Amino acid sequence: MRTVITGGTVVNATGRALADVVVDDELITAVTTPGLVTGADRTIDATGKYVIPGGIDAHTHMEMPFGGTFSNDTFATGTTAAAWGGTTTIIDFAVQARGTSLLSTLDTWHAKADGNCAVDYGFHMIISEVDDHSLKEMQPCIDAGVNSFKMFMAYPGVFYSTDGDILRAMQQARATGSMVMMHAENGIAIDQLVAQALAEGRTAPVEHSITRPPELEGEATSRAIALAKVTGSPLYIVHLSARHALEAVAAARDTGQNVFAETCPQYLYLSIENMAEPDFNGAKYVASPPLRSKDHQADLWRGLRTNDLSVVSTDHCPFCFKDQKELGRDDFSKIPNGIPGVEHRMDLLHQGVVTGEITLERWVEVCSTTPARMFGLHGRKGVIAPGADADVVVYDPAAKQTISALTHHMNVDYSAYEGLEITGAVETVLSRGAVVIAAGEFHGKPGHGRFLKRDLSQYLV
Amino acid sequence: MRTVITGGTVVNATGRALADVVVDDELITAVTTPGLVTGADRTIDATGKYVIPGGIDAHTHMEMPFGGTFSNDTFATGTTAAAWGGTTTIIDFAVQARGTSLLSTLDTWHAKADGNCAVDYGFHMIISEVDDHSLKEMQPCIDAGVNSFKMFMAYPGVFYSTDGDILRAMQQARATGSMVMMHAENGIAIDQLVAQALAEGRTAPVEHSITRPPELEGEATSRAIALAKVTGSPLYIVHLSARHALEAVAAARDTGQNVFAETCPQYLYLSIENMAEPDFNGAKYVASPPLRSKDHQADLWRGLRTNDLSVVSTDHCPFCFKDQKELGRDDFSKIPNGIPGVEHRMDLLHQGVVTGEITLERWVEVCSTTPARMFGLHGRKGVIAPGADADVVVYDPAAKQTISALTHHMNVDYSAYEGLEITGAVETVLSRGAVVIAAGEFHGKPGHGRFLKRDLSQYLV
Amino acid sequence: MRTVITGGTVVNATGRALADVVVDDELITAVTTPGLVTGADRTIDATGKYVIPGGIDAHTHMEMPFGGTFSNDTFATGTTAAAWGGTTTIIDFAVQARGTSLLSTLDTWHAKADGNCAVDYGFHMIISEVDDHSLKEMQPCIDAGVNSFKMFMAYPGVFYSTDGDILRAMQQARATGSMVMMHAENGIAIDQLVAQALAEGRTAPVEHSITRPPELEGEATSRAIALAKVTGSPLYIVHLSARHALEAVAAARDTGQNVFAETCPQYLYLSIENMAEPDFNGAKYVASPPLRSKDHQADLWRGLRTNDLSVVSTDHCPFCFKDQKELGRDDFSKIPNGIPGVEHRMDLLHQGVVTGEITLERWVEVCSTTPARMFGLHGRKGVIAPGADADVVVYDPAAKQTISALTHHMNVDYSAYEGLEITGAVETVLSRGAVVIAAGEFHGKPGHGRFLKRDLSQYLV
Amino acid sequence: MRTVITGGTVVNATGRALADVVVDDELITAVTTPGLVTGADRTIDATGKYVIPGGIDAHTHMEMPFGGTFSNDTFATGTTAAAWGGTTTIIDFAVQARGTSLLSTLDTWHAKADGNCAVDYGFHMIISEVDDHSLKEMQPCIDAGVNSFKMFMAYPGVFYSTDGDILRAMQQARATGSMVMMHAENGIAIDQLVAQALAEGRTAPVEHSITRPPELEGEATSRAIALAKVTGSPLYIVHLSARHALEAVAAARDTGQNVFAETCPQYLYLSIENMAEPDFNGAKYVASPPLRSKDHQADLWRGLRTNDLSVVSTDHCPFCFKDQKELGRDDFSKIPNGIPGVEHRMDLLHQGVVTGEITLERWVEVCSTTPARMFGLHGRKGVIAPGADADVVVYDPAAKQTISALTHHMNVDYSAYEGLEITGAVETVLSRGAVVIAAGEFHGKPGHGRFLKRDLSQYLV
Repeated sequence: MRTVITGGTVVNATGRALADVVVDDELITAVTTPGLVTGADRTIDATGKYVIPGGIDAHTHMEMPFGGTFSNDTFATGTTAAAWGGTTTIIDFAVQARGTSLLSTLDTWHAKADGNCAVDYGFHMIISEVDDHSLKEMQPCIDAGVNSFKMFMAYPGVFYSTDGDILRAMQQARATGSMVMMHAENGIAIDQLVAQALAEGRTAPVEHSITRPPELEGEATSRAIALAKVTGSPLYIVHLSARHALEAVAAARDTGQNVFAETCPQYLYLSIENMAEPDFNGAKYVASPPLRSKDHQADLWRGLRTNDLSVVSTDHCPFCFKDQKELGRDDFSKIPNGIPGVEHRMDLLHQGVVTGEITLERWVEVCSTTPARMFGLHGRKGVIAPGADADVVVYDPAAKQTISALTHHMNVDYSAYEGLEITGAVETVLSRGAVVIAAGEFHGKPGHGRFLKRDLSQYLV
Repeated sequence: MRTVITGGTVVNATGRALADVVVDDELITAVTTPGLVTGADRTIDATGKYVIPGGIDAHTHMEMPFGGTFSNDTFATGTTAAAWGGTTTIIDFAVQARGTSLLSTLDTWHAKADGNCAVDYGFHMIISEVDDHSLKEMQPCIDAGVNSFKMFMAYPGVFYSTDGDILRAMQQARATGSMVMMHAENGIAIDQLVAQALAEGRTAPVEHSITRPPELEGEATSRAIALAKVTGSPLYIVHLSARHALEAVAAARDTGQNVFAETCPQYLYLSIENMAEPDFNGAKYVASPPLRSKDHQADLWRGLRTNDLSVVSTDHCPFCFKDQKELGRDDFSKIPNGIPGVEHRMDLLHQGVVTGEITLERWVEVCSTTPARMFGLHGRKGVIAPGADADVVVYDPAAKQTISALTHHMNVDYSAYEGLEITGAVETVLSRGAVVIAAGEFHGKPGHGRFLKRDLSQYLV
Repeated sequence: MRTVITGGTVVNATGRALADVVVDDELITAVTTPGLVTGADRTIDATGKYVIPGGIDAHTHMEMPFGGTFSNDTFATGTTAAAWGGTTTIIDFAVQARGTSLLSTLDTWHAKADGNCAVDYGFHMIISEVDDHSLKEMQPCIDAGVNSFKMFMAYPGVFYSTDGDILRAMQQARATGSMVMMHAENGIAIDQLVAQALAEGRTAPVEHSITRPPELEGEATSRAIALAKVTGSPLYIVHLSARHALEAVAAARDTGQNVFAETCPQYLYLSIENMAEPDFNGAKYVASPPLRSKDHQADLWRGLRTNDLSVVSTDHCPFCFKDQKELGRDDFSKIPNGIPGVEHRMDLLHQGVVTGEITLERWVEVCSTTPARMFGLHGRKGVIAPGADADVVVYDPAAKQTISALTHHMNVDYSAYEGLEITGAVETVLSRGAVVIAAGEFHGKPGHGRFLKRDLSQYLV
Repeated sequence: MRTVITGGTVVNATGRALADVVVDDELITAVTTPGLVTGADRTIDATGKYVIPGGIDAHTHMEMPFGGTFSNDTFATGTTAAAWGGTTTIIDFAVQARGTSLLSTLDTWHAKADGNCAVDYGFHMIISEVDDHSLKEMQPCIDAGVNSFKMFMAYPGVFYSTDGDILRAMQQARATGSMVMMHAENGIAIDQLVAQALAEGRTAPVEHSITRPPELEGEATSRAIALAKVTGSPLYIVHLSARHALEAVAAARDTGQNVFAETCPQYLYLSIENMAEPDFNGAKYVASPPLRSKDHQADLWRGLRTNDLSVVSTDHCPFCFKDQKELGRDDFSKIPNGIPGVEHRMDLLHQGVVTGEITLERWVEVCSTTPARMFGLHGRKGVIAPGADADVVVYDPAAKQTISALTHHMNVDYSAYEGLEITGAVETVLSRGAVVIAAGEFHGKPGHGRFLKRDLSQYLV
């Protein structure tokens, strides 16, 4: 089965060209000057469109248990929404419950995902309990294609790891060539500020941001960097939201230390002002780290340009406003943390191309190429090149759309970007050669998506 | 005429893959999984080899007048040597003589180069005299495909521009979208140190470095950055040699300012110790900025990894030891400035891959892809992709070679790297589809190389 | 003749105490617990008042030639105004005219000042022409008690020194233990901006600030620091006005380099908004460096607290609005540069104590103690201690006053601080034991003030 | 009873002068030109000597419980040794034992010290348990003259406070105007490195330093600074030993944050090389933070010059080599932490004057004046001025001495500086007017020293 996508502008991270993309079965087999390869079973006309590697969202939480509830997208609904938005790979987090092993956790997550995903997927592993056993399990996890381990400096009593835990895990990461991912907020100090706010009757959603000041994200980021320096481990800071943290990352990167960071669309477009919306509406934006004051946004866009921020992921973690977010109506600390977003990342970042914040090539790089290289998928994903999986998006740069919960495909009853007008829209999506989105319809099916056994990061010199 | 380079590992800046490269006449028309496209008139077996975009040396000086003599490579000999070394594009400098116009200068340089080059070439323009006339000529130069303008903070009385000149030229660069390139050394202060050294009888080659301390390169770099900030102009620092300058560049880049820098192989491999070699041998290494103490080398390699150094060029400027370098036997300040290197850049940087300083992809990026993007050649050069010129190098990563003046092809009687052993060697070179190097023989011819009318820099957001 | 100042709070740079100050003839001979020493010929009751060392204004320009006119205070009127304001020492600038020698310049300035000053005075030397002769004259100047040499990176064609000149003078300063003072603005670049403004018809006073952007003060400051680093010379940045320059100074000081800086009251209290006052009123505030946007003020106050700014001087340089400032009515570049201020420095900085910007001790330190140590007067001036000259000010912290040209004693027809209300006022001033100000009357006389042959700076380790 | 110290050079933090110091009973009542005040009951000839304020050692541990043993100096022996060394005030640490209150701790320490001290003394309070009760007790402690509260980021399970504890205590410090002192090492991470070393059989004293890398002191220092920033609390870093920490302090101070730091003589003179001395001799130097590599020493001296290090204290904590240090012969982690030093601080820092590291005035400032200002004793201590306590040292700058356990007066069987030759020696010491050291004999007595109820820090603007 040969498909040729013809007449479009193929955009890779380091350049664009008018070219045809030849797909045989599941793989891209050629990129050619227009018309060179013939004999297509199916031709997709991409004239006037971009032809880009499918998006890779390296940070999602489907069906994630959190505070007695679950994030509301299943792997089926979540990956379908991803496909609608031009994202053909997600890397979700398997979450070690305390008292369980990493490998059994992996089994549990495979059971959730396998046979249900519309696009390909991989896993990171959240280590909630650092002990000799879990450290030893890192290598079998790596052998199973899960080689990035997330830890938390936030959430004491839940996912929190001590600096000693982190040190040990980083030593193991160094020894195994794997990657430590870090949620960098000083949860111990934050918990005091939260308790004080509640004791003073400050219970509204906006307090979630006020009690998590950016200095405490900057602090934790610096600390993680110091521990990485001591151990020689690489470090990937997830969902960086504050300039304080960005400065720490930039300083470390200037010294050549293997420190990387991602940010998320919500930090580029939303702010603490949203969290102060009346009628408990602010709860829709409660995530950690929290939305910051607006002046951080320009710094984050700059960080994307300077490559101090290398990746944009979503931290997609949808909780419905009704019944879920409402759990914290009288106590912001009980609001489930998370913002839905897997469907709109490609559009929101393309909007940054439209407004001149980033180049077209950089859009592809931060949304697809770098996540692939960072997480051991390069060659297979993140690039329009022969031999790569035929995860291809035809993107119409001129289309107009308005983001709304009325039209989105995520299984959640609100949108954090309700009413936002975007220039650009996904037109056609191929996942390993299969058309999953075309002409405004979903043609995919649960179970098409395969688990990705990832290689070690290709960013580490 | 179809050529297929088959079985090799195609390496681009953001990844590698086993793939065939299809060349039709002068262009790459497809990159495919092995064997997909057939019907080749000529097949080049690249099994076990890298297939990379031809190198781009963005800083050469062929037949350059300097202090009453000329650099010893003609465009014919220099581009031939480039080809031998896997470099298929050079960007040379047209040098405005005081009292002449930019456009007539361009004519002069075209006259030197046209019909003589073995590979493609472009020009930067050196502005030696900033006045209303030359500022107005910038736009026609840009229209003629020469859109990068070099200025000197060194060499008072020769190429030196005042800060006021630089400010004006930068304003014009900002207005026209063109690039200012800067030789950043404080020549005014250096001239005093040189005069003092000579007055004290310190005349040996090593004094060339002693009288040009790295602080004065750092200072000038900072100053150029400040002037670029005031004017909003992009800035490209040529031949950065000292950590002091690198720190200034890194700091500016952290703020998102459009500041770029190149370094050269001589700063990565050689040091002031070479300049102290006896019997006037140190003269072989006299260039400006000068070779530094060895401890700068690790910082420069790090800068290449962090992308604070984006490009490696050679500043190729060959003067024979005999008769030319000897002009300064009694006075280091009379030694013609320059080191030959156009032939060995690809090999010297590949050696950095061998020793683990940079990745394979980064080698291609700093030697080819980024120079192309930086200087408006992307899409045409610097990438193995359909539509690009078929400037392709088959590189044998396992070959061994020893650099020596006895075997090199540059028209100069010594090598700065005499006896250095390298792993890796160029095997086959195509320039716009024509085989110019193969099986240890040169098959090219003067006049094959065409002038490249360059677009504006593709790096400027 | 014994005077005892009794009952006050003696404030020195490192502490305060209720104490009596005993003055015998011209010297402080004891500081004692109240009442210890008796037998006074004259007793000054300082109950409820501060007793502080007389102010030292290390930067004044009396009778200074500038653009065909002269600053309007003579040494007689200027030092009288100083006394009124609690300043008992000024260090003025002898200005080498091109074509004349440093020593003859010194003679000229002695002729202006000797016999005319109401309080003690010293000289710095402005080197306008760096050549072998003037460099050789530095040592005799030092021997004559003038050991600080000011140079200009601004004012091309007038006072401007090239970087080569500065390098040579710094080498000589290093060799002789003397101090280089620097007016740090990139005058070469500024001149282009000024010419462009005038060419575009932008002639109003506010353009003076717009054409001298703070980046070009920061740049010149960094450059001066780099030259000082290369030569090993100490460096004192005069009249620092911009955070850009402050950052450069702070960074150098963190490394332990002997770099110092002063700011002036006008930069702490006034801003570019004043320069935009209508009816040419902005001309009153034209000085170089220019007044900056208001946000620089907080940084400068912080710099005073962190000691990155060590001294507050006035750069007193009074030109009358009428006839003098008016020379630039149609061309801001013709407005004589300078703001009157010698009379109000102590009050304006005390206001900083009132508003909590600095401590009481720090007030004394930046206005008196540090200038004394910086410029070789310590032990003699700047401290209330036995053996020091009896330059003593009784300062009433509770008095209220309003600054106005109607009441000031400087020989100039406007005040830059017209209408500003101040808490605190000078009550009594002694100069070398003689009461010069008391009960609202001037009791001094021209010629009382003596030339101060200064020692080398006592700040240089 | 009147004493006059005559003929010496009185040295204060901001200058020196030939002057007499008049002491009436316990107070300095006058500083005068030589011979001005007569009628002395006792005259001390200080011709050719320095007359300086008695040293203030703001960091000592007498009779401190540690790991089942006690530091070997009692308040009696320790303060006597201090007096021998020219230190006339110590500030010791009252140590809250877990489960006890701050106020009862204070009672305990008063019981140890009162009636036993040869010189004056104050207390800081170590908070080992942060809870509502101890936070409330901070104010009564402050009222009792103990207003500086030390916390530990090291020593988990012993003195360790969490970041939440620190945050709360800092909030209280901010509210009460008191000072937080911090032992800044990441003890949680260090404990892992210690456990790993022991598990690998690395048990020698030098491992104490290896398992406490300077990065983890830098990290903790940065973290303390961030918490101080969030809370608005002042912060005083104790016993800073590593450049990594110094850089963090300097950066914070540049922003104007109220962050201060002390270092100790051992970090200026000793290094990890001492810890590697054979025969368990390295145990003599075991303290926390540990001795660093030698290259840190120059940075610390520089920090003293730049005032990023404001104070030199000793962290005096003597454990005998025999029986005490030997507890850790088979396990470095069991070696009692501490180095004796209260007797030699003034000499060791004067040696820095001799070698040109600091000025004479800076010696007095870091050893006496600044500790007094920092800890609310100024006016009373730290200055030769009327009204101050007559704590006066006559110091002979020309004497020679060799430090040795054979001759020292501390109650410990070794010296960390054994054999070190020093230029300069204490000659005469007055404590509140009483001669305690003279002509090589001790004339003091236990119980002469009084408890100092300290004011709030005088350094906080």
